[in-house]
Order: sequence, then C-alpha cells, then structure tokens
Amino acid sequence: MSVQGYNPRTGEPFGEPVEATSDGEVDRLCEAAAGAFQIWSEWTAADRATVLDLVADRLDDESELLISTADSETALGLPRLTTELKRTTNQLRLFAEVLREGSYVEAMLDSPNPDIIPPRPDLRRVLRPMGVIAVYSASNFPFALSTVGSDTASALAAGCAVVVKAHSAHPNTSRETGRVVTAALKEGGAPDGLFSVIYGTQSGVRLVQHPHVKAAGFTGSVGGGRALYDLANSRPDPIPFYGELGSINPTVILPAAAADRPEEIAKGFAQSVTMGVGQFCTNPGLVFAPESIVEPLAAAVADSTGGAMLNERMCHSYRSTVEAMANSDLVQVVATGTAPDEAWAGTPSLFKVSLDVFVANLEKLTEENFGPAGLVVTYDDPETLLALLHRLPGTLTGTVHASDSEHELAGRVAAELRKIAGRLIYNGWPTGIALAWAMQHGGPWPATTNTIHTSIGVPGIYRWLAPVAYQTWPDALLPPELQDANPLGITRRRDGILGKH
Amino acid sequence: MSVQGYNPRTGEPFGEPVEATSDGEVDRLCEAAAGAFQIWSEWTAADRATVLDLVADRLDDESELLISTADSETALGLPRLTTELKRTTNQLRLFAEVLREGSYVEAMLDSPNPDIIPPRPDLRRVLRPMGVIAVYSASNFPFALSTVGSDTASALAAGCAVVVKAHSAHPNTSRETGRVVTAALKEGGAPDGLFSVIYGTQSGVRLVQHPHVKAAGFTGSVGGGRALYDLANSRPDPIPFYGELGSINPTVILPAAAADRPEEIAKGFAQSVTMGVGQFCTNPGLVFAPESIVEPLAAAVADSTGGAMLNERMCHSYRSTVEAMANSDLVQVVATGTAPDEAWAGTPSLFKVSLDVFVANLEKLTEENFGPAGLVVTYDDPETLLALLHRLPGTLTGTVHASDSEHELAGRVAAELRKIAGRLIYNGWPTGIALAWAMQHGGPWPATTNTIHTSIGVPGIYRWLAPVAYQTWPDALLPPELQDANPLGITRRRDGILGKH
Repeated sequence: MSVQGYNPRTGEPFGEPVEATSDGEVDRLCEAAAGAFQIWSEWTAADRATVLDLVADRLDDESELLISTADSETALGLPRLTTELKRTTNQLRLFAEVLREGSYVEAMLDSPNPDIIPPRPDLRRVLRPMGVIAVYSASNFPFALSTVGSDTASALAAGCAVVVKAHSAHPNTSRETGRVVTAALKEGGAPDGLFSVIYGTQSGVRLVQHPHVKAAGFTGSVGGGRALYDLANSRPDPIPFYGELGSINPTVILPAAAADRPEEIAKGFAQSVTMGVGQFCTNPGLVFAPESIVEPLAAAVADSTGGAMLNERMCHSYRSTVEAMANSDLVQVVATGTAPDEAWAGTPSLFKVSLDVFVANLEKLTEENFGPAGLVVTYDDPETLLALLHRLPGTLTGTVHASDSEHELAGRVAAELRKIAGRLIYNGWPTGIALAWAMQHGGPWPATTNTIHTSIGVPGIYRWLAPVAYQTWPDALLPPELQDANPLGITRRRDGILGKH
Repeated sequence: MSVQGYNPRTGEPFGEPVEATSDGEVDRLCEAAAGAFQIWSEWTAADRATVLDLVADRLDDESELLISTADSETALGLPRLTTELKRTTNQLRLFAEVLREGSYVEAMLDSPNPDIIPPRPDLRRVLRPMGVIAVYSASNFPFALSTVGSDTASALAAGCAVVVKAHSAHPNTSRETGRVVTAALKEGGAPDGLFSVIYGTQSGVRLVQHPHVKAAGFTGSVGGGRALYDLANSRPDPIPFYGELGSINPTVILPAAAADRPEEIAKGFAQSVTMGVGQFCTNPGLVFAPESIVEPLAAAVADSTGGAMLNERMCHSYRSTVEAMANSDLVQVVATGTAPDEAWAGTPSLFKVSLDVFVANLEKLTEENFGPAGLVVTYDDPETLLALLHRLPGTLTGTVHASDSEHELAGRVAAELRKIAGRLIYNGWPTGIALAWAMQHGGPWPATTNTIHTSIGVPGIYRWLAPVAYQTWPDALLPPELQDANPLGITRRRDGILGKH
C-alpha cells in the first residue's frame, strides 16, 4: 500500500508514491513520541519557544521547494501558498511569543483559610501538557492546517509530542515539510521522536486508538471526522477529539446595506466565495439578501473564475452537487463563472431560492457544498428571517452587512447568529483568519465536535493542556509558575484576582 | 413508576414515593428551560449574582428540614450534613463573587494590523453561556453534588438553564431542595422553567438525548457514567459530557515519614478512609507504605467505626467485595473495624499485599471499592515503586507523605503521580475539597471523562461557556465586556496582555 500524490491541473500522478505506515510502525512512533514527551514537557516554556522560532526559520529557508511541491499537489497557486506558508511560520512564532509571555499556564494560587466552610488549604493550580497528540491534516491548507499547522504548532508549544497523519491529497508536501521540521527540531536539541508523520487511512485509524495518544486534532469532512470521533469516544479510555468538520457560514445582507452599496458587497462576496476555489471552511456559501441585490451578486459571480480543485473526489462531489442543484425544482441558477481548462476544475455557481421554499427544505438546502458555489435566499421581511436564523446548523462564522441606519437590526441579527456561530463578522467576509488570542474558529456541531474549542488562534493551545493542583506543597518542590516569589514574573490569579503576583 | 426513598439505618421506606418523570414531561421541562435560557443568559452577571445569593440564603433558612430529610435518606449524620449544606450555599455565594469580579468571561481584544501576514482585523472574544445543561446528582453528596451542587451552581452562574436528574437514593431531599431553589429563583425574578428536577432512570436517559440540552454534568459510577457518556456522544449532534466516574486516590508514604510519625499518619489515614463511611470520590483506598507502618495503620483501622451506607446496592457491593478479598489468596486481612447494628452498615477493613504481587495483579487490585476499605501495598525500594506509579489508572488525587529529609524523593513521586492525577497532596489527605479557583477535581479517565475539566472549584464554570468572537463590530453593538471603554472595569487580555484595560 502506498499514497500517491496527483497534480489537480493535469490529473497525472505527481512524485513518487509514499509508503503507507504499517500498524507496527505507528505503534513504534507513538512509543517514541511518549518517550520524547517525558523530556520535552520538562523543558521551560522559553526553551520551547526558541525551538519553535527555529522551526519557523528553517521552513522559511526552504520555502521555494515547499511551495512548489504544494502547488504541484494542490494547484492552489504560488501567491496563495506563499502567504499560507508565511502564515504557518508566523503561527509558530506567535506561539513562541505566547510561551515567553508565560501566563497561558493559567497559574492560580489560593491561600489557606481554616475559618471558612469548608476550610481551605494552600492550593495552587497550573496547566500541564497532556502527552502525545494525534493531528489529522486538512486537504485545503497544505501548510497552515497540515503537517506543522495550527494543531501541531499549538501542541508542540504546549509541551506535547505530535504524530501527524498526512492528508492523502498532498503526501509529498507532507513528507518535505516533515523532513524540514524533524531536522529543525533536531538542530534545536528537541528529543528524538517528538514529531513524526504517518501515511494512509489505516494509520490514522490506528493512531486515534493508540493508548499513548491523549487527544486528537482534526480538520476535514463530517463523515471522516465523525468516524474518527466515534473511535476516540469508544476507546476503553476515551480521549478528547477536537474536530473541525463543516460549516455553511451564513451571511445576512440587510436592506439598507443592499441598497447603499450593492456593487461593493457583490464584489466582496464573489471574491470570498471563490477564494481558493471555494475550498475554505469559512466559505460564505449561504447568503440571505433582498431580491434587489441578486443581480449584482450574479454579475460578480459570472465574472469570476474557478480553478482546479484539490483532488478528484472533491471535484466530482462538487460538480455532481452543482448539477443536481441545477436540475432541481427548488432552486434557480442565477450565475455561472468560468474555469480554466484543467483536469479537476470547479466552476463558480450561484443559485437562488426564496425564503419560504428555503424554510420548507431547510435540511436539504443547508448541506455544505465544498467548492465555489453560493445559494442566495431572498427575503422580504427581516423579521421572518430573524425567526429562522437559530434553526440553521452550527457554523464557524456568521456575517452581517448593514448600513449605519441599521444598527439596531444588525444587533438583533447578531444575537440570533450567536446561537449557532463561533465568530461574527460585521461588514466584512469570513474567509481569512487572524493569528490572535481573540480568534475563534469553532462553533456548535458540526462546525466543531466541541463547542468550547477553537482550532485556530492562541486559545487552541488549551486543547492540549490539563490542570494539576498542588495542595500544601513545600515551595521549593513546586513548579516555578506556582512558587511564592513568582520567579517567572507571570500574571497569575491569586486569591481570585489576576495580577503579576 | 415511582422512586422510593429508604432509611439506610433501618432499611425501611422513607417518605412518600416520588412519581417518575415521563418522557413527555422531560420534553416539556427542556422546552421551558430553553425559553428561560433566552432570558437568563441576557441578564448581567451582577444580577445573576444577586439571585445566587438569594438561593443560598433561602436554603440556609430551611436548613433544618433539608438536613433532617437528607439524614433520614442517607444516614450521613447531622454534623456532616450541616457542614455539607453550608458548603453548598457557600459554593453559590462564591460563584456570585466570581460573577461580580467579572473576569471569568475571559474577554480578549486584539487590535487591527494590516501589515502582518495574515492581516489582523479588529477581533474581540468573550465567553457566552451554552444553553440548557443536564445535571446528574450524586448519591454521596446529597447537597454539594446534587440538586443545587457544584454542577447546578456553576451552570446557573454561567447563565445557563438546568434540568437536574435526582439521584434515586434521596428523592425526598431532591424534592425539598428543588422546592426551595425554585421558590428562591421566582422570588429573585428569574424566568420560569430556568431550573427543574426530574426523577427516575428513564428520565435521565431521555434528558441527555434531548435536542435542547447542550452539555451534561455527572458524578457517579463508571458503569452509569459511561452509559450516559456513550448516549451523549452518539447523538446526531454530540454534546460534551462532563462525568466524574471513579478514583482510587493512591497515597505514597515514604520511608522516613513512616519512621518519624507512624501514629499521626495512621490516625489520619483511618480518619480519611472511613470518612462518610468511605463513600468519598477522594477516599484514599490505596496506600504504598513500608512494612514498618502496617501495624499502626491496622491498629487505627481496627479502632475505627463504620456506619450505614447510602443504599442497599452500595452496601451489598461493598460487603461482597470485602468478602471476596478476605477469601482471596492474593491479599491478607490486617484489620477490621466495628460497625453499628444498622441495616446497611459497612465495616472498615484493611488489606495488605506486597508490591510484587500487586504489580502482577494490577488490574484486579486497582478496582475501586466504594466504602471504608483500604489496601496497603508494602514496598522495600522506593525506586521500584516510582517505576510503577504511572501505570495506575487515572485518579482524582495522589498523596505523598514525606519527611523534610525526603524532599528530593517526594518531588520525584509527584512527577510520576502528576501523570495520572489531577490534584497532588503533600503531608495531608485527599478527602475534603475547597471552594477556590485553584481547586481541581478531575483527572485522566476514569477519574473524569475529560481530562481538562474539573467538577468542583471555580473553573468548573468553563464547562458551560463557549467563546464567540466579534470581528470589526461597531463598539455600541458589542457586549459591554468587549467595548473599548471597558465599562465593567474587568481584567481583559488586550493585544495578548492581561490587565484592566
């Protein structure tokens, strides 16, 4: 068994096949990772930060090879992949900064009080890394959500070891990235086995069930994610499975905004819905809008160009869904863009349906169609729309376009979208994420398997950390984060109050 | 169908049977809770705090009836139940304080920066309540982990609605507590349906599968917890299930400590292992000790008194496990305490086994035996013991007794215990918890279903909160926690730094 990369522009094989990882080899790598974890988890945060910076630098050093390999396997294009690799290395650098700042361990100290009920002993709590983390790469971000993407970066930062299951659509990119990361970790003095990459579907099945694996991160389809999630939960000792599975990203265009700036909104929409050939988790595929703006939206999509999709399966799935919608009595085709003459090309498409037909076919019309397609749901009365929004499936993002005169209505839309979405955008578009503490990339099922987590942004590190409390321990035996003198100078919560104390 | 309470001292029925809640009624209560959530979740934290204080006061007002009812149904005794009710009301008051302090919402604000890759828009993140929470009461803490215990208190504080499944061993206590809480919530102006209590096994099965329920809290057995956990995970939309299931709480007595203060340690152990007739999740049932301290430990246990256990099933299970151990070739009975002549009495017992026999029968000898029984594992060489500790099952606590001369060794024991335990105690005992930010009551499976969570202590509130991020929103439309001027004056993380800004 082996994993073969393909060039989506030609449909031809790219590079040599990569051998699928055997069960025995998965076990050996998990053992090695568990050993490396014992060492790495005892490093200081500042020392781990130095290594993360080094990994980032070495990836940048080899950017030419990495980007050209990824372009051959994903057809995402050099400009996009150049930005994505930079985002990936900046993500590592951001986590290095977070480690140096140090307060991410959420140190909490409570002083003893024998006079309350129940009496309180000296208690000190800190977050500690959990162990070996399984990371499942995404197809659509060969760098930023793959081998050394946000799951891997946050897990290594936390002090965990990582075994990455490579995505079958870019084995060569995974192998080259893995090679650079492994060499950089070695150069930085990290323990052998801290990071490894495995290949083939069965290796991923074995991985999530391995006793040494303590949690998993996943970005991909609802089907694949649910299968692995169920395996994680059915272990004798279940583990947290943080999956980002699917999202329809509703956008609400309010009446005055549609009237005030139809061209601007239409242009922004077409750009967002076709970005990366629509292969974004945050693709705004569902738009609620007044009829008046349908024509500008259609014109913008008709003007747009598609491209080769990430793999054959995805392309076929997209094409057949678009075809089924075009032949359906429920919706109406309002625009079709163009596409280059490439093997697995996807063409932008825009459909239209009225709000009442949409409501009557809610489940069918809220299935995610991964690719550059949009569905405009036309509404007359914002009140009817407001009553519907909370019934949409869980989603990563919700977007509102409003004019200054519509603030009150925009606030009410936000209150409804908040029930189903993890990030709310005002007069912007959901594609494009930021590297920041306040970034939230998660939401109610199926956006993510766990409403509480985010898979992008600094708080993603909390997926791999678990609290431990020390009760009445001698100061010298405590981790430095918890010692009385606060030798690391970090912000801690002491007797309930946050401060550098 | 109905649920009948019993007096464990006599084995006779106590009070009138309480009618089991029908599926239809569970559905109706979940609907009502979802409606109440829409209102309660929009209250300010300070207003919710006022209501929590009121609930605490009203429970204290009715303490005489509540305590006497609980004593009749649990036989835990008036002194213990008086303290436990006070702990329960103080828990509500602590969450009220947390709400007033306000920083628990973890507000994060990042300012825009167009010059980085990827560019960063204005992003602001805050935690919001999740919805209706299912709470499953524990048998062993009829107040502190039941109707209005730590799950309910933290969920109401978070802004969630709660449906409590009463424990079948104390239906009258649940009903009386529920009555007081419902009346106090009404008096405080909270919306109808915010809190309700249901009865009977089937009602709990229905509850965890109800579409309106967004997360669950549970304290109980591995069997019952796993069954509900599997139901939560097999929903079309899985929900987080925070269960606290079972814990063996290993204690390590180091050689010099055993030599220096055998009587003190033995007395402390006997008190901790028989507290509440051994029916504590944190009961230190497994002790690693030098042979020299076995005699004092045995003498202390022989001197101790048991009592009526919480229910017939628990008593029979305890007695048959003790009998099986007494008849086993593996372990040796070294002490038996006394017990009052009560229907469901459990008698303290202490067993002994050598480290090598223990290691050879690890799985069998690390099963939790809920009740006042302990197993002493005698060791000669601390190094052999150190190599074993990480192989123990996940547990809530790990305890070390050391003398001042053994600090280095104690530190190494802690490093091993940290791999399997959520709270580490030095020269103390694990029974007894504190109400504090730094309290951790959780650990690797089966201690809790989710390594990251705690079911006691302030951070328990995070089980019921999920982040939402606002991107480029007008300041006036943001929740006050995220507005530029910081009108609530809370500590926030702004551009990565914690402060009142």
